[in-house]
Amino acid sequence: MVSAEDFFFSGLRRGDTSNAVGSNVTAANVNQIPGLNTLGISLVRIDYAVDGINPPHTHPRATEILVLLKGQLLVGFIDTTNKFHSKVLKKGDVFVFPKGLLHFQQNVGQRNAVAIAGLSSQNPGVQVTANSLFSANPPLPDGVLAKAFRSDKTVVDFIQGKFM
Amino acid sequence: MVSAEDFFFSGLRRGDTSNAVGSNVTAANVNQIPGLNTLGISLVRIDYAVDGINPPHTHPRATEILVLLKGQLLVGFIDTTNKFHSKVLKKGDVFVFPKGLLHFQQNVGQRNAVAIAGLSSQNPGVQVTANSLFSANPPLPDGVLAKAFRSDKTVVDFIQGKFM
Amino acid sequence: MVSAEDFFFSGLRRGDTSNAVGSNVTAANVNQIPGLNTLGISLVRIDYAVDGINPPHTHPRATEILVLLKGQLLVGFIDTTNKFHSKVLKKGDVFVFPKGLLHFQQNVGQRNAVAIAGLSSQNPGVQVTANSLFSANPPLPDGVLAKAFRSDKTVVDFIQGKFM
Amino acid sequence: MVSAEDFFFSGLRRGDTSNAVGSNVTAANVNQIPGLNTLGISLVRIDYAVDGINPPHTHPRATEILVLLKGQLLVGFIDTTNKFHSKVLKKGDVFVFPKGLLHFQQNVGQRNAVAIAGLSSQNPGVQVTANSLFSANPPLPDGVLAKAFRSDKTVVDFIQGKFM
Amino acid sequence: MVSAEDFFFSGLRRGDTSNAVGSNVTAANVNQIPGLNTLGISLVRIDYAVDGINPPHTHPRATEILVLLKGQLLVGFIDTTNKFHSKVLKKGDVFVFPKGLLHFQQNVGQRNAVAIAGLSSQNPGVQVTANSLFSANPPLPDGVLAKAFRSDKTVVDFIQGKFM
Amino acid sequence: MVSAEDFFFSGLRRGDTSNAVGSNVTAANVNQIPGLNTLGISLVRIDYAVDGINPPHTHPRATEILVLLKGQLLVGFIDTTNKFHSKVLKKGDVFVFPKGLLHFQQNVGQRNAVAIAGLSSQNPGVQVTANSLFSANPPLPDGVLAKAFRSDKTVVDFIQGKFM
Repeated sequence: MVSAEDFFFSGLRRGDTSNAVGSNVTAANVNQIPGLNTLGISLVRIDYAVDGINPPHTHPRATEILVLLKGQLLVGFIDTTNKFHSKVLKKGDVFVFPKGLLHFQQNVGQRNAVAIAGLSSQNPGVQVTANSLFSANPPLPDGVLAKAFRSDKTVVDFIQGKFM
Repeated sequence: MVSAEDFFFSGLRRGDTSNAVGSNVTAANVNQIPGLNTLGISLVRIDYAVDGINPPHTHPRATEILVLLKGQLLVGFIDTTNKFHSKVLKKGDVFVFPKGLLHFQQNVGQRNAVAIAGLSSQNPGVQVTANSLFSANPPLPDGVLAKAFRSDKTVVDFIQGKFM
Repeated sequence: MVSAEDFFFSGLRRGDTSNAVGSNVTAANVNQIPGLNTLGISLVRIDYAVDGINPPHTHPRATEILVLLKGQLLVGFIDTTNKFHSKVLKKGDVFVFPKGLLHFQQNVGQRNAVAIAGLSSQNPGVQVTANSLFSANPPLPDGVLAKAFRSDKTVVDFIQGKFM
Repeated sequence: MVSAEDFFFSGLRRGDTSNAVGSNVTAANVNQIPGLNTLGISLVRIDYAVDGINPPHTHPRATEILVLLKGQLLVGFIDTTNKFHSKVLKKGDVFVFPKGLLHFQQNVGQRNAVAIAGLSSQNPGVQVTANSLFSANPPLPDGVLAKAFRSDKTVVDFIQGKFM
Repeated sequence: MVSAEDFFFSGLRRGDTSNAVGSNVTAANVNQIPGLNTLGISLVRIDYAVDGINPPHTHPRATEILVLLKGQLLVGFIDTTNKFHSKVLKKGDVFVFPKGLLHFQQNVGQRNAVAIAGLSSQNPGVQVTANSLFSANPPLPDGVLAKAFRSDKTVVDFIQGKFM
Repeated sequence: MVSAEDFFFSGLRRGDTSNAVGSNVTAANVNQIPGLNTLGISLVRIDYAVDGINPPHTHPRATEILVLLKGQLLVGFIDTTNKFHSKVLKKGDVFVFPKGLLHFQQNVGQRNAVAIAGLSSQNPGVQVTANSLFSANPPLPDGVLAKAFRSDKTVVDFIQGKFM
């Protein structure tokens, strides 16, 4: 038997942005709200410190539609032809990041920023790209990363060191 | 060729709530954002005056997940066994209205309220139930409404008159 | 191990129409036929007494396609622009009620009527709108119904009383 | 602009069963009812003469759920382990033929029979298996049919001749 | 907890073609690879002896896309208008068999042939048509097969005997 | 009117691997085969030079299932908890890269390698991650890349320079 509690979550509140990238994502998906099962949607709240970014990432199972509640953001995604599409958003502006594509947001205003976004999956998943590549467990082979970034083991070790 | 403009909308702003129900829904769906085509998601902003309601309605093609940004709302939906599930939401609380079910929100706070909601369709559609039944064009047969509401023509005419 | 019994149901027979609306819906969906699981379809038989109606209702998860086997029906649905689309059906006529939209059938012939309908879900669900709004358990707030129907507590109490 | 006509079809009536198999299928799908587009459902009426069969066939894009209106039918489908599941249906009985599987109906009563079936696609398609194999245009290679049926050219030519 | 083993299968190798049709299908689907669950895809390897065929069959839940690795194949499918579409493939050629339609491959080269095919389901299923019709368990009624193939019990018994 | 040509492609042949990463992907999707439209599947052939890699990338709309035809590959994907799942494949081994997740293949054998892979979309798309981030057009802001990789403008400029 379901009850109202299965469709309720009391926690889409301000997140702590005191971290390496200056942003925080708080999720309201099927992990928090069991009633979302099979319903194909979820929400997040994103907080951005001054100079913060929500770094390039992908959602393997969802499109995202974001509305800016406060502040000013540079937002963008890269399409499958490597074209970069971006806009500077003000309060009340909306932007769409199509399913599976690399995208990010950067706080370009003078104060903190806040956004709400809908995602087209009850369990969208996220891969923060640099973290996935340079701090996977176990690590990816050095040779793969070096060749992918057209660099060498020194550069790869340098970046990997930053994620330890 | 697509451009960033196809994924952008600058209008999820405060709506005018000076109407019969004291609420206003502003949409950001495929009609405003052509890039949403086939992507299965959209957003709305809902404004509520003091004592305002977003009256009982259905979205024929979408589940809705709502987060309250300001104020206090009584929210609820009726399931297919006629059980009414409701909660009083405070700022930051989230509630889900499953696909196709009757639901509403009522401002139960002392000031205006604001919510953002994601919907699991690029074109969710909406039927405000009382309006659809009593102000359809052309009107529904009196006999159908009278029998459905277990009333008579007088009651039906009275309500229909309010929608003219 | 599945068997033929999992795909069989022996009960799409005449229903008892001696009730407030003069109609009866008999279902053959996944609750009766476990083999329908994941297959996305079900059937109903609808019986209508003289002057009976299948009152305005929605199926939250299905489109319906109805064929009239006997009698004469006025059928219709309301679209999301509040336009009412209707036809009078004779034996052998077919009508479609798109997913999630308010619709009804009214017996406008001189004798009882019978229809079969397919629904695009193994578990389509149904909300008989007036019943859901006026006999939900627990009841909806009076103020919500009064404002939705642009009436007052007297009218709401009157209709609610009819459903007790 | 859509109208009620787009959702209406006046032709699910008795079909002519004076043919090689003694049955007739009349369809109400997106080809007859443009409003069914994207809605994922359709209907058929099937008439069976005495001794008639609706021969083994598949619907490449749909599950079928059939209700018998008149007469007596032996119905069955073969699953992907070559198990044959069958039942004898009486008036009001329902049977499901899962998506894409070989199935048939045989009139085993003393008079004509009539069924209505829902299909889980607006355009389900049909392949009457013997006809597709032995009267395709152009014909399939003799060697393929001979080996498939573990027979020889004589048998294949004999059957192909029956379909000319 | 998933591991790499859940996404791995070590067996898409040469199959034994010493059988009645001179072909062998080796599958890599959710039955071999549990990690494919919900992911909607699988693979097969098909080996063909000289003069071998992969006889007419259907996949009830999948489209197939085949690439020829070695040898020469005549491939074809029959559409729902009974039109037969075919090509002779050489190494590196690709052909598509749309969802649910009857199709086959015939080795028309001088040596064995090998193909790999992707299927649009984690559990596509297969019905080898002649086998399903003539060696189902229990058998289909003689009368149904006789009428379907426009033949008589003698022909049906002859073919059924070949499958015992 | 469709013909066999709409379902045929004669080009899944050896690709030229003399490039920065030592690999080449040849596609057979809806861009090459119009008949794949709506059918939800496609194929690729991947060639790997000695020491070549198919660098970390994502398919925004597809799961991939790969079979190794020749050589020896280290393959792997990173899941949404940053766990890296990998295997060394030999001829005939199969591996699955779930929808939207970062994955790669590395030739770890002594000679060139060849694989065929099915993808669960007629238009899967691909983003080679390092290329998308460091050679997008126009370029991503330096500050975003620097912060994402926890490095500085010098490192970002160094890598970007490699892609010019």
